Amino acid sequence: MKAAGTIPAGYDSDNGMLHIAGQSVEQHIETAGDTPLFVYDLARVRAQVTAFRRQMPAGVALHYAMKANPWPPLLRAMIGMVDGIDIASAGELAIALECGAEADHISFAGPGKRDRELRAAIVAGATLNLESEGEAERALAIAAAERCTPRLAVRVNPDFDLRGSGMKMGGGAKPFGVDADRAAALIRRIVAAGATYRGLHIFAGSQALDPAAIADAQRSALALAARIGRDSGAVPPLVNLGGGFGIPYFPGERPLEIGAVGAALAASLAARDPVLAETRFAIELGRWLVGEAGVYLTRIVDRKISHGETFLVTDGGLHHQLAASGNFGTVVRRNYPVAIATRFGMEPAETASVVGCLCTPLDRLADRVALPHADVGDLVAIFMAGAYGATASPAAFLGHPAPEQILVDADRAQP
Amino acid sequence: MKAAGTIPAGYDSDNGMLHIAGQSVEQHIETAGDTPLFVYDLARVRAQVTAFRRQMPAGVALHYAMKANPWPPLLRAMIGMVDGIDIASAGELAIALECGAEADHISFAGPGKRDRELRAAIVAGATLNLESEGEAERALAIAAAERCTPRLAVRVNPDFDLRGSGMKMGGGAKPFGVDADRAAALIRRIVAAGATYRGLHIFAGSQALDPAAIADAQRSALALAARIGRDSGAVPPLVNLGGGFGIPYFPGERPLEIGAVGAALAASLAARDPVLAETRFAIELGRWLVGEAGVYLTRIVDRKISHGETFLVTDGGLHHQLAASGNFGTVVRRNYPVAIATRFGMEPAETASVVGCLCTPLDRLADRVALPHADVGDLVAIFMAGAYGATASPAAFLGHPAPEQILVDADRAQP
Repeated sequence: MKAAGTIPAGYDSDNGMLHIAGQSVEQHIETAGDTPLFVYDLARVRAQVTAFRRQMPAGVALHYAMKANPWPPLLRAMIGMVDGIDIASAGELAIALECGAEADHISFAGPGKRDRELRAAIVAGATLNLESEGEAERALAIAAAERCTPRLAVRVNPDFDLRGSGMKMGGGAKPFGVDADRAAALIRRIVAAGATYRGLHIFAGSQALDPAAIADAQRSALALAARIGRDSGAVPPLVNLGGGFGIPYFPGERPLEIGAVGAALAASLAARDPVLAETRFAIELGRWLVGEAGVYLTRIVDRKISHGETFLVTDGGLHHQLAASGNFGTVVRRNYPVAIATRFGMEPAETASVVGCLCTPLDRLADRVALPHADVGDLVAIFMAGAYGATASPAAFLGHPAPEQILVDADRAQP
Repeated sequence: MKAAGTIPAGYDSDNGMLHIAGQSVEQHIETAGDTPLFVYDLARVRAQVTAFRRQMPAGVALHYAMKANPWPPLLRAMIGMVDGIDIASAGELAIALECGAEADHISFAGPGKRDRELRAAIVAGATLNLESEGEAERALAIAAAERCTPRLAVRVNPDFDLRGSGMKMGGGAKPFGVDADRAAALIRRIVAAGATYRGLHIFAGSQALDPAAIADAQRSALALAARIGRDSGAVPPLVNLGGGFGIPYFPGERPLEIGAVGAALAASLAARDPVLAETRFAIELGRWLVGEAGVYLTRIVDRKISHGETFLVTDGGLHHQLAASGNFGTVVRRNYPVAIATRFGMEPAETASVVGCLCTPLDRLADRVALPHADVGDLVAIFMAGAYGATASPAAFLGHPAPEQILVDADRAQP
């Protein structure tokens, strides 16, 4: 038997039937029309936003990295709750604008921006986080051709990393941003060219659960921003300190203590170099805001025994939950939090593996976990499914339909 | 520097410009309209089919596992060249029928077939490869309700594996098929229920390059089929011996010697148990038929130096080429065959990494390989990209457009 991640607190059930936002999962499926289904609870997102506002120093802006979950109904709600939307393509720009984001609050990072994407962002008035000197020259040329003043920030490849992060984005040769020692020259160039200088973007890593590691990275980012501010002779109007706030997916992991992060950041900001006195700061989060809010529901289509092992075969799979299957950036497969949603809270009765409907041994959603006995027709819930799910999985693989998605709100549920 | 896989033979160039099927890659991109672009050369597929027909024993049927590449123009061509189409979902069934496949030549394997999928296949007249006793009962009940005689084969979880295969599909507890020792009882059940018994499906693994390993697995499959034939009292009309024919992706790998596989299979068939005297045999291939026929072309958008390393940033990425990025079923990342398509055949001049346009360090198409010097605007070609590319990647991730796809045919190219 293998362990599974810890199911987030706050889920209740009625007679074994998992409830989300005051309604049973079967009711949600009836509303949505089918399984597999992602249910996103806006109340959980709101709780994260509220925790951020309470625990982070006043004035630190909160940005949403929409790549984590760009589903328009969710994105529309996010736009109303955060201070900025971070995008990664012209496609995301179009969705963000359609969903009501103001261009003034949109910033665009991404190492391979095409000319057409630069043009779309410049014309819309979004901020470009420049990834290289070459991209800067292309942006300036396009802006000149369009007779626009481009809004340009510089993404810096930091000379430090985020310890313990799931994905390192700094501390060595990277395709993201310009190396720290070249940032000042690039800023001087874009200022001299007449662009509106919007500041710095410093992203050292993602998915960290140790507040001290995040605090260290933020302190290092402040020091780097100050150095670049002095070297460039241009005060950065905004420093995006990156994200890195992780969520607990796997056995033994615990939620990030954001209070500790906030206290450390307050101290770092209080002690910051005077060159940054007028600078505003932002933190860019995706997964931490929406990950825990999502539950992926998939129905058991077959129950099989093979060589003494039990397999619960579902109508879902890695085509919607690539990360949960262990096939996206993980070396050792570990189990996400999982439950039989129609026998929620019942005592485990057997060891079973939950697999998807795809014809590949990679399609495993839970490997040999303790579960109540489940039959065909029962529902499996995979928790922590709100980020990097539907759009970060090979949805067209094997020709299955796209998953259903539904937005609920426990804060507005009927009692 | 790291090695890359070997570029398949037969590609030529003019002044450094890669040609495919008699036209330059720039001409193909102009025809298709944009990059990134998958170019599939039907002549290479035809050559594989021809090799199969020449080297495999006469009468062994060739099936195409359309999950490898279900793009309709390619699929339509495949349907004209092979003897059967193997599908994995009702979605694939619909595409196969639309593209002209006859239901009589379609068989449907997949561990999580939903009732609606069973119904669609039964009503269409396709063969179901039953994955479990439970699925058999559902299929029989649906057929009775539809007043159809279902065509049922039994997928067997073999009690052996395919040595050296990239993905093992047998030899232990698996979610695929019924365990070998339960197959005979299931066959008796479906025959007694009045179904049309279509035979056995035995798939031991995939992506093997050792002909002896494949020959062993085929010999074991024949022995298993004979045992099940005797135990069940029903001669299998067809035995699908599975696939497993690999293609060389990585440094040091060599193409499968299919002649050796064919000779060994001929010997095994000649020596087979008389209970299989009237049985027909099929081999089900996906990757081996179409993998080498595909080239993924992506344009360099940025050329960057970070801490002394060179990055060629392209407009493509893991959203089209998840496997090439090393994030789909591989533990250790290795490089696919790669070239600068606009400087093809030129001497390497530097070590560079080819990365995609996504904001994640996972998005690396080639890691520190020797390449001619390339600039913004040059094209990168990733070879062996015809299978498990466009549909087996998270296409919607970060909001980029779907790749272009084009079908060409070197056999019909203008000289």
